[in-house]
Amino acid sequence: MKYKDSGVDIERAKRAKKAMIKHVKATWGPEVLSETGAFGGLFSLGRRYEDPVLVSSIDGVGTKLIVARMAGRYDTIGQDLVNHCVNDILVQGARPLFFLDYIASASLEPEIVGSIIEGIGTACRNHGCALIGGETAELPDVYQKEEFDLAGCIVGVVERQKIIDGARIQPGDRVLALPSNGLHTNGYSLVRKIVFGTLGLGLGDYVEELGCAVGEELLKIHVSYFEAFNKISEIADIKGMAHITGGGIADNLSRVLPDTCAATIRKGSWPVPRVFEFLQHGGAVDDQEMYQVFNMGLGMAVIVAAEDEDKITGGLRGIMDVHSVGEIVKGDGTVTLS
Amino acid sequence: MKYKDSGVDIERAKRAKKAMIKHVKATWGPEVLSETGAFGGLFSLGRRYEDPVLVSSIDGVGTKLIVARMAGRYDTIGQDLVNHCVNDILVQGARPLFFLDYIASASLEPEIVGSIIEGIGTACRNHGCALIGGETAELPDVYQKEEFDLAGCIVGVVERQKIIDGARIQPGDRVLALPSNGLHTNGYSLVRKIVFGTLGLGLGDYVEELGCAVGEELLKIHVSYFEAFNKISEIADIKGMAHITGGGIADNLSRVLPDTCAATIRKGSWPVPRVFEFLQHGGAVDDQEMYQVFNMGLGMAVIVAAEDEDKITGGLRGIMDVHSVGEIVKGDGTVTLS
Repeated sequence: MKYKDSGVDIERAKRAKKAMIKHVKATWGPEVLSETGAFGGLFSLGRRYEDPVLVSSIDGVGTKLIVARMAGRYDTIGQDLVNHCVNDILVQGARPLFFLDYIASASLEPEIVGSIIEGIGTACRNHGCALIGGETAELPDVYQKEEFDLAGCIVGVVERQKIIDGARIQPGDRVLALPSNGLHTNGYSLVRKIVFGTLGLGLGDYVEELGCAVGEELLKIHVSYFEAFNKISEIADIKGMAHITGGGIADNLSRVLPDTCAATIRKGSWPVPRVFEFLQHGGAVDDQEMYQVFNMGLGMAVIVAAEDEDKITGGLRGIMDVHSVGEIVKGDGTVTLS
Repeated sequence: MKYKDSGVDIERAKRAKKAMIKHVKATWGPEVLSETGAFGGLFSLGRRYEDPVLVSSIDGVGTKLIVARMAGRYDTIGQDLVNHCVNDILVQGARPLFFLDYIASASLEPEIVGSIIEGIGTACRNHGCALIGGETAELPDVYQKEEFDLAGCIVGVVERQKIIDGARIQPGDRVLALPSNGLHTNGYSLVRKIVFGTLGLGLGDYVEELGCAVGEELLKIHVSYFEAFNKISEIADIKGMAHITGGGIADNLSRVLPDTCAATIRKGSWPVPRVFEFLQHGGAVDDQEMYQVFNMGLGMAVIVAAEDEDKITGGLRGIMDVHSVGEIVKGDGTVTLS
């Protein structure tokens, strides 16, 4: 018997690795000290930092994967993954240093792996982040035929003095919203059930309300707030930030509020992309559920002093829209949408 | 329609998180600055290092997962995962700082997740490593019923001056072997095919040759070489180390050899655990395939100057066995087993 007979093909895995190397190396700056094939990735932090705090996060892209697979389009989900992870450490004030990916499937197609890594590499380069490690695993009997999973881990750094932890948030502060471009990477199991099940649509079907085909809408790349964050932190003191993902605005924003504060958010004060109305109507989903599962157009919440609001709006012109959507009041850490 | 109707249950995911928190917090020292529920995990590197190089690796445990699921025993695979990752960064001289896990399934059972995290937490504590982040994902339609995947990312640190990169390896150096206790986490798709398919055994079946039940043998925890590494590095200059995983002795050892050197390894110079003979015989696997897929009892290879060999053997007494299994000769980066 051969290892290959059990469904694991080391030679094919080697071909998959070959297909990705150029995308990986294109993300490397002088801080990367290891070569491909090393056991661990070496990243020189060096002496640039006074009192460095490493900020890390691990995440997946959920069943947006299945949509990508259905569309046969694998070059964008890697960008979703990286952008999502970047946003998750940005909210604490960190900038990305390096990224590691994990791709697993019953059987890896080298071309698909190459395409996923190309997307990861593109997004890493956009953030000056080194793609320093990864694992491609073949797990027959765990995954359904043709399906695969993708996860990634990001490590960034922030000077201890500059950590954003919400502690300085106080009543009177404002909640600003940076817009999402649609679903980002959350709620895709529900989305697929509504779109492909209830509505019986296919990826190629054009939807008037969306102004595009279903597949195009569903594969829009998760927005990175890196550039907007950099600009805002130049001109104002960011007191708190929340990346709005699964759990919606309320659950995510409450993660950064001190126990003595609450947030009131005004529905209607920012534009809700049409995809949400389309899904709500198509799936007969109630309003509360919509705001619990989806970002509803509010991709990133930023909490600043009231007097910084205008400066930020001006500073972001040409980079990203920003909307004033709520206030911080006295309270018990909760978020009210009304 | 509710999100729950699509197979994703946010409430159950919250229960799963609750089941793991105490195991997570038990791994935290004063370097961990974040609370559970933060977007990213904060780890203070501080000013302890002269010229720090971060060493990272991401990995899974392969289909050893399926064996754990069959046995209904979830507290050891987390230890497999962490020990595997620790070994992967040890070989470059790094000690672990923090770890992040990723658990995904069609549907997460809070008790199972709690048990996996307990194992991860135990192994993290054994290495003074903080379990600083994680993601539990429910992906209906990606995973087969009852199956799940588990991956983890480790970040460690080494002073730039102390990186072990194989560059100082030269002809005349010795290859020492630190023993594995069996399969570790590699080759389980083949193992399952032989044991459950060809041999028709069940997990509870006692096997005379192994001196234990099949399930006990197959779930032996991947050995960590952390303590042995610490001892060896106190008493000698480690020139190169290779963690023997998928690809076997030849593929892994060649990753650390300079282009101008080769390694000759003497089969029979270290004890081969009985599980390998049992599998080879049971599955009619040829010798070459066995040495390509499995560690064959050689869990970690350590390359040192010939004059350090005796010191190391003495120093490891009471900690771990060590065997002299080969030499470095002039060559082209290849490894010969004979």
